[in-house]
Amino acid sequence: MANVARKLLVDIHSHVYLPRYAALLRSRSTAPRIKTLAPSGEERLLILDNEPSGGRPVGPQYWDRDEKLKFMNQHGIDVTVVSTANPWLDFLGPSEAIELAEKLNEDLEEYCATSPVIPASKSTPDPSGDTLRRIYAFGLLPLVPGIPSDALIESISKIRTLPHVRGIILGTQGLGKGLDDPQLDSLWAAISDAGLVVFLHPHYGVDSNAWGEKDNGHVLPLALGFPFETTVATTRLILAGVLDRHPALKLLLAHSGGALPALSSRLSSCITHDPVVASRLKHDARHYLGKLYLDAVAYGPEELGFASDVIGRAGSYSASPEVLPMTLEEKRSKGAKQMLFGTDHPFFPPLSTQEKWQSVTENLKAINEVQGWSEQDRDGVRGGNAVRLFGL
Amino acid sequence: MANVARKLLVDIHSHVYLPRYAALLRSRSTAPRIKTLAPSGEERLLILDNEPSGGRPVGPQYWDRDEKLKFMNQHGIDVTVVSTANPWLDFLGPSEAIELAEKLNEDLEEYCATSPVIPASKSTPDPSGDTLRRIYAFGLLPLVPGIPSDALIESISKIRTLPHVRGIILGTQGLGKGLDDPQLDSLWAAISDAGLVVFLHPHYGVDSNAWGEKDNGHVLPLALGFPFETTVATTRLILAGVLDRHPALKLLLAHSGGALPALSSRLSSCITHDPVVASRLKHDARHYLGKLYLDAVAYGPEELGFASDVIGRAGSYSASPEVLPMTLEEKRSKGAKQMLFGTDHPFFPPLSTQEKWQSVTENLKAINEVQGWSEQDRDGVRGGNAVRLFGL
Repeated sequence: MANVARKLLVDIHSHVYLPRYAALLRSRSTAPRIKTLAPSGEERLLILDNEPSGGRPVGPQYWDRDEKLKFMNQHGIDVTVVSTANPWLDFLGPSEAIELAEKLNEDLEEYCATSPVIPASKSTPDPSGDTLRRIYAFGLLPLVPGIPSDALIESISKIRTLPHVRGIILGTQGLGKGLDDPQLDSLWAAISDAGLVVFLHPHYGVDSNAWGEKDNGHVLPLALGFPFETTVATTRLILAGVLDRHPALKLLLAHSGGALPALSSRLSSCITHDPVVASRLKHDARHYLGKLYLDAVAYGPEELGFASDVIGRAGSYSASPEVLPMTLEEKRSKGAKQMLFGTDHPFFPPLSTQEKWQSVTENLKAINEVQGWSEQDRDGVRGGNAVRLFGL
Repeated sequence: MANVARKLLVDIHSHVYLPRYAALLRSRSTAPRIKTLAPSGEERLLILDNEPSGGRPVGPQYWDRDEKLKFMNQHGIDVTVVSTANPWLDFLGPSEAIELAEKLNEDLEEYCATSPVIPASKSTPDPSGDTLRRIYAFGLLPLVPGIPSDALIESISKIRTLPHVRGIILGTQGLGKGLDDPQLDSLWAAISDAGLVVFLHPHYGVDSNAWGEKDNGHVLPLALGFPFETTVATTRLILAGVLDRHPALKLLLAHSGGALPALSSRLSSCITHDPVVASRLKHDARHYLGKLYLDAVAYGPEELGFASDVIGRAGSYSASPEVLPMTLEEKRSKGAKQMLFGTDHPFFPPLSTQEKWQSVTENLKAINEVQGWSEQDRDGVRGGNAVRLFGL
């Protein structure tokens, strides 16, 4: 299978609003909502309150599988692992969230199970006789304030029965107190036990007062707020010992982990100088970055190279450190095994419909240009790592 | 002078609260303040409201020059460019801020001018006949809400007359609307014209709701909030065109630019997809990182190497790009010329008074271990770059 895997381009960061979800958004009068502009009938997506410029255009690329496949074909993407875009079910009450999670997960399974198979030239049936399809999915959890723990565990059990749902996508609110809430420990255990990949994705950003008065469109919340949110959530998971207690948890961070790779040594230094916090952790903070998977959605080769450095060096920061000195290439090659190509489709569309999407071309170019990655490392990031992580 | 410069270790990130400033903090009953604990008489610094663990111990290392020199001698630091620690004069009204800025800048000048000279073995008199001293300074501006522009310009004029004050340290509040406030344009022009180095330093972090309920001491605001604040402020300067209009502005960012190096390609991508914002800028966002100076206070060699990558690659993102392909070593060597050793003294003290400070040893070790830097690059980061930037 390794030989096959090397040839596939797999997109693990690609969003959908399936028809049932889009209908819910259309029925709402506050964000998140889809609003129809008169008289054109054009639909606009308002994810946040006070969305700049009246929301962003939204269309069939969010809900129509043919559009997803067209995009994949246009860019040579063999397999996509789709996930519902933010804000998931975060805005619903517990009973509505439970019901919708179940239905949307079944919708997702059908969306995948009936997607085309990978042509025989690119694939061989796996030992169980299953065929590799073009689309797999991250499911949804009803992770909202007020939800009972057993409803979350029950939801995980149901997702385990869906053969094409290989992970779950999560925002950072948890039960209202974030992901470091001790109440979530049984959930982490259940996810870890199920072998599901957690795709941690931002939505809330940071307090918008930080952006000032100047109109910079979506730039500051998307370019900075999103990565900050992922960074804070993951750091809080580390500080709460979640990665110590659940070492098998497969945590995939959106946008190459945001600012976490760049701040992990500072984090380590701040922890060292705060003995109470330090005493709670088994390892130096930098060790935990070696437990993470990062999408390769960072738009530049230097960024990807650096992210692979911090994953690759993590072993030397364990409580029982690996003491071998590593070259840049060794670190990068090791780290590359936990990085996975993604596109963020259908966000950031090109200005003309004929163009290739810059989010695809830039991220592929970045993978090609990382200094110190071998061709095998690049193949892994483009698809081989996803094949292994998601058991494709 | 280049040969001399190569041998010096220069610390450009080192803080003081001079006696006049410490007295002000002692006189206050709300943060920022220095509080005396009874019956020990121990003093605690409360920089922020709701400071965890009752504030941090504060002592002569903040105000006594002998302590600063002792620290320098212990760690082989030849020259230090000191700066008042946050929150500077940010909490004062305009008239008080003007008066105190003037007095404190004179105090700083005296603190430097009467500091020891560099031993003859390490220095030669410069062409003007001046002697190199052990301590130089960043001055303070009365940059507070309600201050008239001409008071700021007047303050710059006075700083220019102080021979050992070679820059100014700035927080991010500006006149209350941040540093992208168009009202500040005359200030940037005056600073640029005076050739003063702006040391941009965080204080406010981000909304503390982001940190959650778990007690993580100072870790989250210091490890993440501080770098986020610097990142947002610098990004807003870029988006407001300040670096386009003031190309000679020397902007030095604390903590190696926080998360900005890691997020600049994402920033560029978000700008490209927001044509209104894109149309306001002369260059790709990544170009502007080549205008910046970064302290080398990032605690790890991979972090420093990456920061030098993003400075070094900046030329290829100009509107008239340099098209030469660059090796990793070329990028890193180019970027290294804009990075400068720092310690953040007297913050992050060791647990025992005999120990060397980890903030020093780790940051020096990081400089030693960056892959792709030549010995000359390392000498530059340790001191040569500071000699050039501050005209020592």
